[in-house]
Amino acid sequence: MTHSPPNPLWGEGSLESLAIGTIRTLAMDAVQKANSGHPGTPMALAAVTHTLWRDFLRYDPDAPDWPNRDRFVLSVGHASMLLYAVLHLAGVKEIDADRMPTGKPAVSLEDIKQFRQFGSKTPGHPEYRITTGVETTTGPLGQGCGNSVGMAIAECALAARFNRDGFNLFDHDIYVLCGDGDMMEGVSSEAASLAGHLGLSNLCWIYDSNHISIEGSTKLAFTEDLGKRFEGYGWKVVHVEDANDTAALASAFDVFGATDDRPTLIVVQSVIGWGSPRAGNEKAHGEPLGEDNVRATKKAYGWPEDSQFFVPDGVAEAFQAAIAERVRPARKAWEATFARYRKTFPMEAAQIDLLREGKLPGGWQAALPSFPTDAIGLASRDSGGKVLNAIAPHVPLLMGGSADLSPSTKTKMTFEGASSFERGDPAGRNLHFGVREHAMGSIANGMALSYLRPYCSTFLVFADYMRAPIRLAAIMELPVTFVFTHDSIGVGEDGPTHQPVEHLATLRAVPGLNTIRPGDANEVVVAWKVALEHSNVPTALVLSRQAIPTLDRKRYAAAEGLQKGGYVLAECKDGDPEIILIGTGSELPLVVAAHEKLRAEGVRSRVVSLPSWYLFEMQDDAYRKHVLPDAVRARLAVEQAGSLGWDRYVGSDGDTITMKTFGASAPLAILQEHHGFTIENVCAIARHIIGKHS
Amino acid sequence: MTHSPPNPLWGEGSLESLAIGTIRTLAMDAVQKANSGHPGTPMALAAVTHTLWRDFLRYDPDAPDWPNRDRFVLSVGHASMLLYAVLHLAGVKEIDADRMPTGKPAVSLEDIKQFRQFGSKTPGHPEYRITTGVETTTGPLGQGCGNSVGMAIAECALAARFNRDGFNLFDHDIYVLCGDGDMMEGVSSEAASLAGHLGLSNLCWIYDSNHISIEGSTKLAFTEDLGKRFEGYGWKVVHVEDANDTAALASAFDVFGATDDRPTLIVVQSVIGWGSPRAGNEKAHGEPLGEDNVRATKKAYGWPEDSQFFVPDGVAEAFQAAIAERVRPARKAWEATFARYRKTFPMEAAQIDLLREGKLPGGWQAALPSFPTDAIGLASRDSGGKVLNAIAPHVPLLMGGSADLSPSTKTKMTFEGASSFERGDPAGRNLHFGVREHAMGSIANGMALSYLRPYCSTFLVFADYMRAPIRLAAIMELPVTFVFTHDSIGVGEDGPTHQPVEHLATLRAVPGLNTIRPGDANEVVVAWKVALEHSNVPTALVLSRQAIPTLDRKRYAAAEGLQKGGYVLAECKDGDPEIILIGTGSELPLVVAAHEKLRAEGVRSRVVSLPSWYLFEMQDDAYRKHVLPDAVRARLAVEQAGSLGWDRYVGSDGDTITMKTFGASAPLAILQEHHGFTIENVCAIARHIIGKHS
Repeated sequence: MTHSPPNPLWGEGSLESLAIGTIRTLAMDAVQKANSGHPGTPMALAAVTHTLWRDFLRYDPDAPDWPNRDRFVLSVGHASMLLYAVLHLAGVKEIDADRMPTGKPAVSLEDIKQFRQFGSKTPGHPEYRITTGVETTTGPLGQGCGNSVGMAIAECALAARFNRDGFNLFDHDIYVLCGDGDMMEGVSSEAASLAGHLGLSNLCWIYDSNHISIEGSTKLAFTEDLGKRFEGYGWKVVHVEDANDTAALASAFDVFGATDDRPTLIVVQSVIGWGSPRAGNEKAHGEPLGEDNVRATKKAYGWPEDSQFFVPDGVAEAFQAAIAERVRPARKAWEATFARYRKTFPMEAAQIDLLREGKLPGGWQAALPSFPTDAIGLASRDSGGKVLNAIAPHVPLLMGGSADLSPSTKTKMTFEGASSFERGDPAGRNLHFGVREHAMGSIANGMALSYLRPYCSTFLVFADYMRAPIRLAAIMELPVTFVFTHDSIGVGEDGPTHQPVEHLATLRAVPGLNTIRPGDANEVVVAWKVALEHSNVPTALVLSRQAIPTLDRKRYAAAEGLQKGGYVLAECKDGDPEIILIGTGSELPLVVAAHEKLRAEGVRSRVVSLPSWYLFEMQDDAYRKHVLPDAVRARLAVEQAGSLGWDRYVGSDGDTITMKTFGASAPLAILQEHHGFTIENVCAIARHIIGKHS
Repeated sequence: MTHSPPNPLWGEGSLESLAIGTIRTLAMDAVQKANSGHPGTPMALAAVTHTLWRDFLRYDPDAPDWPNRDRFVLSVGHASMLLYAVLHLAGVKEIDADRMPTGKPAVSLEDIKQFRQFGSKTPGHPEYRITTGVETTTGPLGQGCGNSVGMAIAECALAARFNRDGFNLFDHDIYVLCGDGDMMEGVSSEAASLAGHLGLSNLCWIYDSNHISIEGSTKLAFTEDLGKRFEGYGWKVVHVEDANDTAALASAFDVFGATDDRPTLIVVQSVIGWGSPRAGNEKAHGEPLGEDNVRATKKAYGWPEDSQFFVPDGVAEAFQAAIAERVRPARKAWEATFARYRKTFPMEAAQIDLLREGKLPGGWQAALPSFPTDAIGLASRDSGGKVLNAIAPHVPLLMGGSADLSPSTKTKMTFEGASSFERGDPAGRNLHFGVREHAMGSIANGMALSYLRPYCSTFLVFADYMRAPIRLAAIMELPVTFVFTHDSIGVGEDGPTHQPVEHLATLRAVPGLNTIRPGDANEVVVAWKVALEHSNVPTALVLSRQAIPTLDRKRYAAAEGLQKGGYVLAECKDGDPEIILIGTGSELPLVVAAHEKLRAEGVRSRVVSLPSWYLFEMQDDAYRKHVLPDAVRARLAVEQAGSLGWDRYVGSDGDTITMKTFGASAPLAILQEHHGFTIENVCAIARHIIGKHS
């Protein structure tokens, strides 16, 4: 028996209107039960989402990891219940981390009742890896928009790599639901400008124009002509005057489908908290409606007022049947095509198998170079560029670029065939992000979410512009490599605005981010190796502008020690060390030189290279104490950066030579002298510390 | 005798063309001598800058601190030599930190020869406080654009506060030179959208469209219709087809002058490295031209090829005479008006005197509230809002707002007359920044650069979106108060994307930034007091979402201890403490409760409140050792944030209860239990540490 309540707002309840009402009321009920959350946007956008999923999105609930599925990105992450409700109604089946079906629904009604509870599959904002069907973690505004551009780039790149005549393996689209907040954030402006430049016709942003922000009407702060702005970016702009007008929505999606030279923005006028006493009011945004309002709203919807988490009979079935009828044949045809593809192109098919598992084709490690001892050496940005260019030909999914600094960050792939990814050249490996660091990070995350192994680069000081995507890469455990060069006062004349001081600490502070500051060219080799071998860890690769000597690895320990984060690089001749000297990056050779000078003076020092605190902290206690024995409390760390965090390794009785202030504009050698980064000063401070302990 | 070389590029050398050539060649020579820098943009924009300064900018070189001067912002900070050259030619007179003339030029020819050298007045990028005439520190792209919107807001606000009938004290304009990089950065998009919304007709951006970025042609990444975008923002857009066409430039500036309802963007087509063999090439951007190219360029300019730092006779004199003739009467008239104003409006005049000195009118401290002991207490965001509203009526220059979160950050001024700053209400005190954190920070910096005392607010986790302006506030030593609420897993159900973990460390890592995390309502009072009393220090005020008990300050030490950054809040009854418990923010009352429980069990603990590491590190060694005596090595710090940096205070033998991972979506109490932030766990760990030491 079907419970089909009459609906005064849209007439006798069709299954379509019931489905839309179900999405709305599930969101209201879940927020009310959690006594926390955002009901208004799911209520406003239920019809949009329903129309998209039922009639347009090529997403098979039976195969949520189908590589050629359309992506649905909820950039308005606070409207998470919208996504959970539709995942529930669509009957999306859960898969585990190994893409195996668990036999459970991605989101059950019980899961929805656990909205925002500890350990649930329905956290406050959608979280990638927690819930099947969540394509990216959203909440920080604008990020979903940026991610979507990365996904759209990835689709083009995958198509260019793998499609063959008659084998159209990759041709999916990316849909994004975004709101006023997304549109105000600079990251989405940057991403939109680049998407327009690249002509990403597989990208559709649906902008929920509800005229309401948290402080009140958007008239308070946001009155631009957004359509005109996006036309300026080179987008197709379509308007839908009523978010409940499913015919108009369908027409708009048709326009997107027919547009093959540019991305599409659909501007949808909506009413936040539609149908509730708080409709059109900012109070509908971020708090439960309250029990009375919930009842009043259900009454207005023609819904049983006392119902809770009510899914009328037949609603889910009809929704699922419509999706299945439209999508399942396409997905099955794809599987058949892929089976044929495997026979004709077994190598490529194997690569697709691997990428679905998050693995790289083997053998690239053999291409890793090694660098000869060199007293002058080379900048680690230079050795980084060489390593990148050595391995990239063997890692086809490796793709990246810079925020308009590749000649400086040395991250351009220059081997034959490594052209620029541009409109008309989707096989290009080098991305030109423009001076758009924030979007760059967010786009790189989107690429990683779509099977690529992205890297992106800028100066370390401008990591500040892209903190949010770095953090999200860590939360999502994405294998993105952030290459940050010009990593200290070694920048020299450009001065304090370009000299990072606090940035190493700010990266080391991010849980799950592997920050590596290699100390010579051979440590750079191992750093890139570690970055690529970790498929669930983002890496910040911190490299110098200035030349660093390449250490004699016969005299000193092998650079492979970097894999443990820290290692004993040089030991005193005999007896226990009187002091441990610790260095990273460009200061490692400085510390080694001081060690040699002290040795000549008869002072026993050990040198510890500590390029990755993240990896070092992963080692067991025994190894860490082997490197930094409790008995040797005289310790000196040298790093051209702020001291925050170093007390952990130098202890209460040690000291650091670090930056106490911002830098200054001057030639490097003068800055190093001024701030004490000289062999003489390292030796003097070391002797002083030893003196205190003897 | 005038050296007037014939100029094949623009005909027989007029003094105007010679002045423009002088700007170009000084830039070339300075970069060449330093063997470092950016010659191309000064060469491209010399005519623009010359025209602006000579014929439009209301800037009296004799009075660089005239409050009503037009502001010239070089957002393309890498083109610093353009600014230094014009400051030199204009004869701007140096003033010291107390605004007293030093008798020196702001930039002498000798200073230009010291370009990019240690301690010079001509660092690689313009630095506020280093060089008279530099209105803001620029270099990180987009920041000058954001600053300029703050300056434009400030002009409106100052006019609204101080202008009276017949006394037009504030009516200046803000001009910005910006480039492709600025235009690609999201921060300038955000700022432009807000400027258009507010209708800031005192704002003129001059966009240097040179079609070149560091990686090559802008065709690689930046092909949008920028004029259309800015029209979408509500700007007047004017085009100048040739950056050397001074008549067209003048017409464009006239359009700006005649536009009274919106900001103006002048799009100027230019050629980077104009006249040199590298003209129009990306190689002209960021490196010296090379001696041969310098000679060839001088030849093309009709300049003596062997000259260096050559200023033809009469050029500076003519430039200065033209400026003086146009501007000096206006400035003197202003002084006369201000003298009359002082008689009629002595109170307001005194306020203007004070603001020029960076001081606040006295007496506001008397309005500081105090909060009674309260076991339940209130969230520090709530007490923060109360303190703000108590003092703001007495501090007219205090102005600020939120990135669309004021109902949550509680930073809205609600007292009578505290309306919203909007088009048509320039006297409003509350700013609605929209969901634009990055621009918000940059705008706040601009406001502080124009005498206001700005604050701005968002959730702590979104400090990530505005790292660059926070850093620049610290570099410039600006009195901006950054209010960051929702400061830990205390955020609860919104989950890991909204729960800061690493952010306290990332703020503490910034040199010169006073990060304060007050532990109860009365510490909040002192925190706001400290923030406003420091006129040269930016403050990050870190506040809780959830309620915090208000401590009994008769039983425990007074909250004024916060002024020293850390203090002994509670002492054990008799004897030396067995352990020191350290807490900040919402964990301070937790630590106090643990202290009381341990006391009841006969364990002697001391409680140290450590809300500001910045202030604590400023204290002398004796005070710090008084608070944290060497003898007590059993220490435990409790903070709902990552542990990075805490080793400094807990030492090698102490421990922390801190966050090891990102948070999760769940009710707060469950998260606190899960992560060990309970009285029982604090006591257990404390006993364990004591056990190790006994």
